[in-house]
Amino acid sequence: MDQPHHVVIVGGGFGGLYAAKSLKQAPVKLTLIDRRNFHLFQPLLYQVATGALSPANIAAPLRALLKRQKNTEVLLAEATDIDVAGRRVILSDGEVAYDTLIIATGATHHYFGHDEWEKFAPGLKTIEDATAIRRRILVAFEAAERTEVPEERRGWLTFVVAGAGPTGVELAGAVAEMAHHTLRGNFRHFSPADARILLVEGADRVLPTYIPSLSAKAQQALTELGATVRTGALVTDVQADSVTIRCGSESEQITTRTVLWAAGVDASPLGRVLAQATGAALDRAGRVVVAPDLTLPGHPEIFVLGDLANYSHQTGKPLPGVAPVAMQQGSYVADLIQRRLRGQAPRAFRYRDYGSLATIGRAAAVADFGWIRISGFLAWLAWLFIHLLKLIQFGNRVLVLTQWAGNYFTRNRAARLITGENPLPLRRSK
Amino acid sequence: MDQPHHVVIVGGGFGGLYAAKSLKQAPVKLTLIDRRNFHLFQPLLYQVATGALSPANIAAPLRALLKRQKNTEVLLAEATDIDVAGRRVILSDGEVAYDTLIIATGATHHYFGHDEWEKFAPGLKTIEDATAIRRRILVAFEAAERTEVPEERRGWLTFVVAGAGPTGVELAGAVAEMAHHTLRGNFRHFSPADARILLVEGADRVLPTYIPSLSAKAQQALTELGATVRTGALVTDVQADSVTIRCGSESEQITTRTVLWAAGVDASPLGRVLAQATGAALDRAGRVVVAPDLTLPGHPEIFVLGDLANYSHQTGKPLPGVAPVAMQQGSYVADLIQRRLRGQAPRAFRYRDYGSLATIGRAAAVADFGWIRISGFLAWLAWLFIHLLKLIQFGNRVLVLTQWAGNYFTRNRAARLITGENPLPLRRSK
Repeated sequence: MDQPHHVVIVGGGFGGLYAAKSLKQAPVKLTLIDRRNFHLFQPLLYQVATGALSPANIAAPLRALLKRQKNTEVLLAEATDIDVAGRRVILSDGEVAYDTLIIATGATHHYFGHDEWEKFAPGLKTIEDATAIRRRILVAFEAAERTEVPEERRGWLTFVVAGAGPTGVELAGAVAEMAHHTLRGNFRHFSPADARILLVEGADRVLPTYIPSLSAKAQQALTELGATVRTGALVTDVQADSVTIRCGSESEQITTRTVLWAAGVDASPLGRVLAQATGAALDRAGRVVVAPDLTLPGHPEIFVLGDLANYSHQTGKPLPGVAPVAMQQGSYVADLIQRRLRGQAPRAFRYRDYGSLATIGRAAAVADFGWIRISGFLAWLAWLFIHLLKLIQFGNRVLVLTQWAGNYFTRNRAARLITGENPLPLRRSK
Repeated sequence: MDQPHHVVIVGGGFGGLYAAKSLKQAPVKLTLIDRRNFHLFQPLLYQVATGALSPANIAAPLRALLKRQKNTEVLLAEATDIDVAGRRVILSDGEVAYDTLIIATGATHHYFGHDEWEKFAPGLKTIEDATAIRRRILVAFEAAERTEVPEERRGWLTFVVAGAGPTGVELAGAVAEMAHHTLRGNFRHFSPADARILLVEGADRVLPTYIPSLSAKAQQALTELGATVRTGALVTDVQADSVTIRCGSESEQITTRTVLWAAGVDASPLGRVLAQATGAALDRAGRVVVAPDLTLPGHPEIFVLGDLANYSHQTGKPLPGVAPVAMQQGSYVADLIQRRLRGQAPRAFRYRDYGSLATIGRAAAVADFGWIRISGFLAWLAWLFIHLLKLIQFGNRVLVLTQWAGNYFTRNRAARLITGENPLPLRRSK
């Protein structure tokens, strides 16, 4: 008896999960490899980092998502290498042979050659990143309460977010909201509203990939929430207690104990592995330059998609590293594999852009749907609606909606727990 | 101007929090010291350990709980010593002077002199304990999926819970429910229902502090859920891959990769500190033997309560280490302090026992309210109602109820995330 065609997917993010889901009825054997046991709804990670949601609200066990898919096996393992000639994925503790391989391992932070900044300026890609950032923000307020030295307190109450893409904007807005609303009345030796939230962006406006009028609206909403926006400014140094930014020819050192990194992303190391093995081209961000059908050039049996892929065939520029691109690419690849198995002609990949959205604090957002651009409360409702629709797969929409409704009416962020190691900040005698 | 009377509370558990809350209107300055920034609803910790609830569902920031209490300051700090003569609490990073001191630092696990067992058999006292146990349980199932050696799989699928008090019974019931219902269909190489859940208890029945008929009901419910109960059995050794239990004169070594400790508790180290400083008596569990008004004998300005106190004046036996005792003692001490300040005569402490409850899996429980003893679904409803009433202070009753209702109808445990370090269990090639 013939072995069924074995499709191996590495990565259970939006790209990998949608590819797997779309292969449910296919006559293949499917193995999904991920080093985590859950799929993460990354666009809402900043809500965990600022105490509004719990990790489990935005993560769902991969096995649960795929348990009814009888052709599919989930493997909790780390892929470290690809044996392209031998058609095997090398794991840290084994190996898996494939007929067709889909690599969707995403991206991580990038510090522009300054990896030493990472320990002072954590990025936001994983659940652990989010709870670590949550701890740092909360500990900073605790330390401000404990110190009696005004300059020290100013350092603890200064929060710098590097990078004003959607994540940076959402993070800065949420921290500003925490300071001005959630934590009001919580401290006895300072007012949390004295906190300074600084959003630093190298381009000349926030959300530089959006149209300028929406950038202006976003900047206004951030200012109203109490954040300060500094555009045309580059981070040139990060230390434990300061950040240096350069604006034109002028440099400024700002005392801060909390720098959050939302500036650069770097594609997953598997891109470099593939490039070395096959001579495939990588772009500057480490993304694999893929063919129009998302295959690795010269290797029709290997697909690369999502944040790991540089797909420039549609607009001449790489498609952005956002969830909708990965999801559509996952479904496309699943369809293509089935067409091949049936001997049908391939269809070309085409990204349908349904618009961009970013949310700023409690009830403000900006949205660009192409045919309509909205901002303010209406955009926020659109954001809420779209995210809830997408959370359908998690089966916990009601739960998240309840939590959001509660947060909305009370401005509460109930999940503001300092967990993990418990850093007891500063000396203070009384 | 006179300084107001300064009451310092060490510990923000049930005892400390209720004492603080009850002093809201008192003409005192109040400082609550805790090394964590949240109050923990410990009776539901096992629900976090088994993936049914998220940490934030059962924890509330102390500052938020006390923010409207203008006479109160919360201090995130660790108390390491008490200077009884100088009336100062020594912190790891400072000190705080007091006029009246309330110590309510609770208890931790106790391994009967075998601290080396802790790394193999974690207990359940903190949020980190709960997420660590959750990780171990989930990783065990993942490892069972990866191994192809039947004896290894049996070890990973054997879960031993040591101690059949309420925590052990609830934990064993929840693990059995996970294996038999939640995880059904999640794996491809074994059936989770093959898991063996063993509850080991030294006494001759589970829930030994309850009346025998309820113990029998609880044992029956556990058996129906698929757990095995072994009474009259003592744990004599714990290793990474086995546990040894002794039943009478017979010893048995059981292969298991997951031992959960719910057997012994040991009072917080501050009890020993007080004993050394004042000559106060400690019982075998390290609890401070307190006077009828909960003061440290000879020190009317120091109160000890909750799990740290041995209060034997009511029944001749120490009151049990449960939340209602701590809550009532906290309120009592707050009232006593106010009586003293007003020059009124003290009232004696009297514990009012409203009953005991334990829950076993999805919809079974046993309850003993003194005047009525119930079991099964009705007891479970009572348990749900009472816990929700107590969660009133968290402001997230609706949220927890939603989650529970969802869990009840779907037998889902959405929070089954492996977080923290990501242990990739076993080798397996294919």
